[in-house]
Amino acid sequence: MITRRKMLFSSAAALLTGGFSMLLGRSQPEAVDTQTTQPSPIKPSTNGLSYIPVVTPNGSTLPWEWDNGVKVFHLIAEPVKREFASGMTVNCWGYNGQTPGPTIEAVEGDRVRILVTNKLAEHTSIHWHGVLLPNGMDGVGGLTQKQIKPGETYAYEFTLRQHGTQMYHPHADEMLQMAMGMEGFFIIHPKEPERTRVDRDFCIFLQEWFIEPGTSTPNPAIMTDFNIFTFNSRAFPGTAPLVARLGDRVRIRIANLSMDSHPIHLHGYSFTITGTDGGPISPSAQWPETSVNVPPGTTRDIEFMANAPGDWAFHCHKNHHVMNAMSHDIPNMLGVKQKGVEQKVQNLLPDYMAMGESGMSEMATMKMPLPRNTLPMMTGEGPFGPLEMGGMFTVLKVREDITTYDDPGWYQPPKGTVAWLVTD
Amino acid sequence: MITRRKMLFSSAAALLTGGFSMLLGRSQPEAVDTQTTQPSPIKPSTNGLSYIPVVTPNGSTLPWEWDNGVKVFHLIAEPVKREFASGMTVNCWGYNGQTPGPTIEAVEGDRVRILVTNKLAEHTSIHWHGVLLPNGMDGVGGLTQKQIKPGETYAYEFTLRQHGTQMYHPHADEMLQMAMGMEGFFIIHPKEPERTRVDRDFCIFLQEWFIEPGTSTPNPAIMTDFNIFTFNSRAFPGTAPLVARLGDRVRIRIANLSMDSHPIHLHGYSFTITGTDGGPISPSAQWPETSVNVPPGTTRDIEFMANAPGDWAFHCHKNHHVMNAMSHDIPNMLGVKQKGVEQKVQNLLPDYMAMGESGMSEMATMKMPLPRNTLPMMTGEGPFGPLEMGGMFTVLKVREDITTYDDPGWYQPPKGTVAWLVTD
Amino acid sequence: MITRRKMLFSSAAALLTGGFSMLLGRSQPEAVDTQTTQPSPIKPSTNGLSYIPVVTPNGSTLPWEWDNGVKVFHLIAEPVKREFASGMTVNCWGYNGQTPGPTIEAVEGDRVRILVTNKLAEHTSIHWHGVLLPNGMDGVGGLTQKQIKPGETYAYEFTLRQHGTQMYHPHADEMLQMAMGMEGFFIIHPKEPERTRVDRDFCIFLQEWFIEPGTSTPNPAIMTDFNIFTFNSRAFPGTAPLVARLGDRVRIRIANLSMDSHPIHLHGYSFTITGTDGGPISPSAQWPETSVNVPPGTTRDIEFMANAPGDWAFHCHKNHHVMNAMSHDIPNMLGVKQKGVEQKVQNLLPDYMAMGESGMSEMATMKMPLPRNTLPMMTGEGPFGPLEMGGMFTVLKVREDITTYDDPGWYQPPKGTVAWLVTD
Repeated sequence: MITRRKMLFSSAAALLTGGFSMLLGRSQPEAVDTQTTQPSPIKPSTNGLSYIPVVTPNGSTLPWEWDNGVKVFHLIAEPVKREFASGMTVNCWGYNGQTPGPTIEAVEGDRVRILVTNKLAEHTSIHWHGVLLPNGMDGVGGLTQKQIKPGETYAYEFTLRQHGTQMYHPHADEMLQMAMGMEGFFIIHPKEPERTRVDRDFCIFLQEWFIEPGTSTPNPAIMTDFNIFTFNSRAFPGTAPLVARLGDRVRIRIANLSMDSHPIHLHGYSFTITGTDGGPISPSAQWPETSVNVPPGTTRDIEFMANAPGDWAFHCHKNHHVMNAMSHDIPNMLGVKQKGVEQKVQNLLPDYMAMGESGMSEMATMKMPLPRNTLPMMTGEGPFGPLEMGGMFTVLKVREDITTYDDPGWYQPPKGTVAWLVTD
Repeated sequence: MITRRKMLFSSAAALLTGGFSMLLGRSQPEAVDTQTTQPSPIKPSTNGLSYIPVVTPNGSTLPWEWDNGVKVFHLIAEPVKREFASGMTVNCWGYNGQTPGPTIEAVEGDRVRILVTNKLAEHTSIHWHGVLLPNGMDGVGGLTQKQIKPGETYAYEFTLRQHGTQMYHPHADEMLQMAMGMEGFFIIHPKEPERTRVDRDFCIFLQEWFIEPGTSTPNPAIMTDFNIFTFNSRAFPGTAPLVARLGDRVRIRIANLSMDSHPIHLHGYSFTITGTDGGPISPSAQWPETSVNVPPGTTRDIEFMANAPGDWAFHCHKNHHVMNAMSHDIPNMLGVKQKGVEQKVQNLLPDYMAMGESGMSEMATMKMPLPRNTLPMMTGEGPFGPLEMGGMFTVLKVREDITTYDDPGWYQPPKGTVAWLVTD
Repeated sequence: MITRRKMLFSSAAALLTGGFSMLLGRSQPEAVDTQTTQPSPIKPSTNGLSYIPVVTPNGSTLPWEWDNGVKVFHLIAEPVKREFASGMTVNCWGYNGQTPGPTIEAVEGDRVRILVTNKLAEHTSIHWHGVLLPNGMDGVGGLTQKQIKPGETYAYEFTLRQHGTQMYHPHADEMLQMAMGMEGFFIIHPKEPERTRVDRDFCIFLQEWFIEPGTSTPNPAIMTDFNIFTFNSRAFPGTAPLVARLGDRVRIRIANLSMDSHPIHLHGYSFTITGTDGGPISPSAQWPETSVNVPPGTTRDIEFMANAPGDWAFHCHKNHHVMNAMSHDIPNMLGVKQKGVEQKVQNLLPDYMAMGESGMSEMATMKMPLPRNTLPMMTGEGPFGPLEMGGMFTVLKVREDITTYDDPGWYQPPKGTVAWLVTD
């Protein structure tokens, strides 16, 4: 266990080995409410920053402090209890009480030092995915450094020679630690202002989990049969909306450390893919898309002008990935007349409920008895009724008359612009 | 149930709410033979159209009629019996008796009205995937409109502000309804003629299904272990060939609403990826490929000059996706001497057949006893013997001397251009 | 069985049918050590070649000989015993004693003849994936030629009209034969020297297998639940390192005929995707990446300047693909206190070992009793301890002072460039 006294000792050790003076205790990030979006005024106070900071919905940005020209960050690897949505809390692993870990933001040219304290019960390390750095800072346990044992703090230090959307994650017991939620964004802003100013800049981390209904701990041995799919370790309806003002230029940065590619679809817009974890894509090479396919181990930046007001669905287009806790080996009752059968089975299995013979939408409204700590498969309530969604789903809300980026509620479409019932 | 009388009432209602005069009854599409390709003369009568219409192999294009400057289409969501190939008919859901639903074709700048009648036993909606439109026309049940209840007809109306290869599909009980076959193309032709005229323009919709051998209804709860893979809801050898004339410029538009990416491979050609559901890819950004990977929730346009005559295989390159009704948990008999064992097992299980000890090709020729309504795993007959294929497979037939685009039969290669046996 | 006498007869037959004079017996490739990389001097003797030959780690290049202006190659389809890594040998199928088969290298404009002898117990054929050729040489059994029966030799002959990274593989009992390891590179070098000279040019073939622990034969019926993942049919730590000299321009060509996309990640670099099996990507269309997603049925070329010295991990970023023989349905013991339980279970099942309650890294060091012919899940030893990797993993070793491309051992980072322990 790391005590404050130990930390200060570490600081002294840092002084000796690295020649830096700093108060390590102060670099401990403040506790954050990991379940809600940070408040979002239209003109954020940049506190003298040269860049417009990113927004990590349902997450936060990692504080840092100067130490003789070096930006010092502190990540603490540790178990994290994460509420995926109201009614479901999961035993994850992460950083600084969060999964994904807090977003690191820095600027091309910065010298950064990142302290990593291991509060897990097994060793770990951090790989700075996509960041150009000296080999010894690459964070591959066994290959470029010793593993960080429980209780130890390691320091990484390097100068940022690029800009773009990078990641951090363990390279030690890698399969298990990433599957438990250990991952975060490493955003490097350009030194020179970007040609096209971006007004809203979101970060969304994709992950998938298998959590047996009725339990609270992900099973990291699962390779394909996942049942919970998350944006920033939240499942719909636990995902914060993305709010933009009409006319904003919006960037969404998406990272994926799950086992599957996720084609993330935005309604109402054609956007452009502008970057990867390898850096910006030159304008001549950019593709237009409405669904950006994000393979594991990559990031994708997309950009668009928010010129269409409304509530636009934003979700993975693999249809099982917008469901919660779906079981994939249930008997197929579609078209099977079940009258009477269900009652007979319930005499034997009190919790039994057959899948609807006419489809599954009835399940979105009926009160199904659910195991503890389990979200309904199809859930969420919109202005026109049940949304029948889950997992990797949220809503981009584009509004004309807003003064903050807080959730503006549901869109009120102008008269005559809504699909209408023509039958009597 | 929608009766004609109700429909006329609806028409009156439409008049009142939307101010349009039309005879709704007449917009009902004609019954089509959904199993065969439409006949294909070299110079199709464009009936005054400004564009060369697309061809939907094993499918059709949705008729429409003018109503005061508005093109009016009518889609009817309903259960559909679909023959996947001779010997296998599946209880799907679709539109107007078809899966995929009939292809919608319109022109950039058109004002379109699309009536959607729900003849399913549960509610539905239609999302116009990739189409730029007012938020209230986006078709997300609960979010942008009320669900369309059984028996109801809804109208969507918007002006087309783009061109490209878009889709339509439900956004209500989405996972199940798409898995049952509810999907279709929405092709928007450019207002200005394309720089490079395309002579042949095909549309192919990808889908995957789990249909327990011996049964007829897809199990929509399956997430990964599919066993039937289709082009336009047909499995090889039920898939129509793609016929082109030597020297034609050919476009193939591919859409995917299944759970997996499908890398669609064309033999004999290097083609170019020219568009997505986000719109045309600028020439500077286009990639050459022989296999185009189509992620779920996307479309891809590919183009090439048909300058090599022959019968060129066109198929998904995931090797299990060119098999039918393959079981994935059979014991591995490869290299196991089975003489005598098979007979002993058959005494107990009369239908038992072991997988060949030397491979599986023997299965393509032997007469296996199959469960009812089940296609052989490896099937199809070519000019040189069994093709040993299934699922997402068809043949591009490029010919010099043809006067129609009807199936020209097998290619006759010039002497000396075929691989030859050199052993005695 | 093909005897030498038969082969000479075949040669005579070739003379009669094709008009070529050659001694078929001499075209038989020499036996190669398939488990080790070929030795690699910095300046390879090109033996008068117009190109720098590719390196196939853990593989080899196919010899050929001239016959009246035709380059003649000979592939023998046959069962192959392949050591995946020390301690695991697998009953595969391949060509000339190897899986992947030996790499074919030729030059744009070459006329090539490839003899294919079938020493399998079932028929086969070879499709030249991505190669532009006459339809009758396309190698699709049943469609463009008769199948090659056991014991037969077929000849393919065509002129190369392109350059790039193509493949060869069977198109007969395709699913099974590819799953058993039948695949190889077909590299066509450009006629005109490339604008940017490449100093090191590697070829890596991706494949995945299901080999029940304790057995030696892949189960080709498996569609999704694979447990061994290979680079050139070798699993880490059996994979050879990729060695480059500081300042070299490096190309890595990656091919995939497995069932899944593999995002291959390189540490320490941003590289460029420069080609596919469809040909070179024009510079204006190239994307920067740190992980190149390689879908099934495609190849990808990546290029970068080796300007950062060190040992850089190179691996698939699907985290289960850097594990060996992982079981995916084990009970989840994470966080479960197991003291005493393990002993009790071992009284019943002597081999039982519970998954660690604190993670899996303990497994990388403890001596687990493994079934025969089975690799540890997490293995490999680096300069700083256990690497905890497996499967699709190797190391790019970039060095300043080397005179050969043989394995230079581990990197010695300059003082002060390694992450350091700051706790006492």
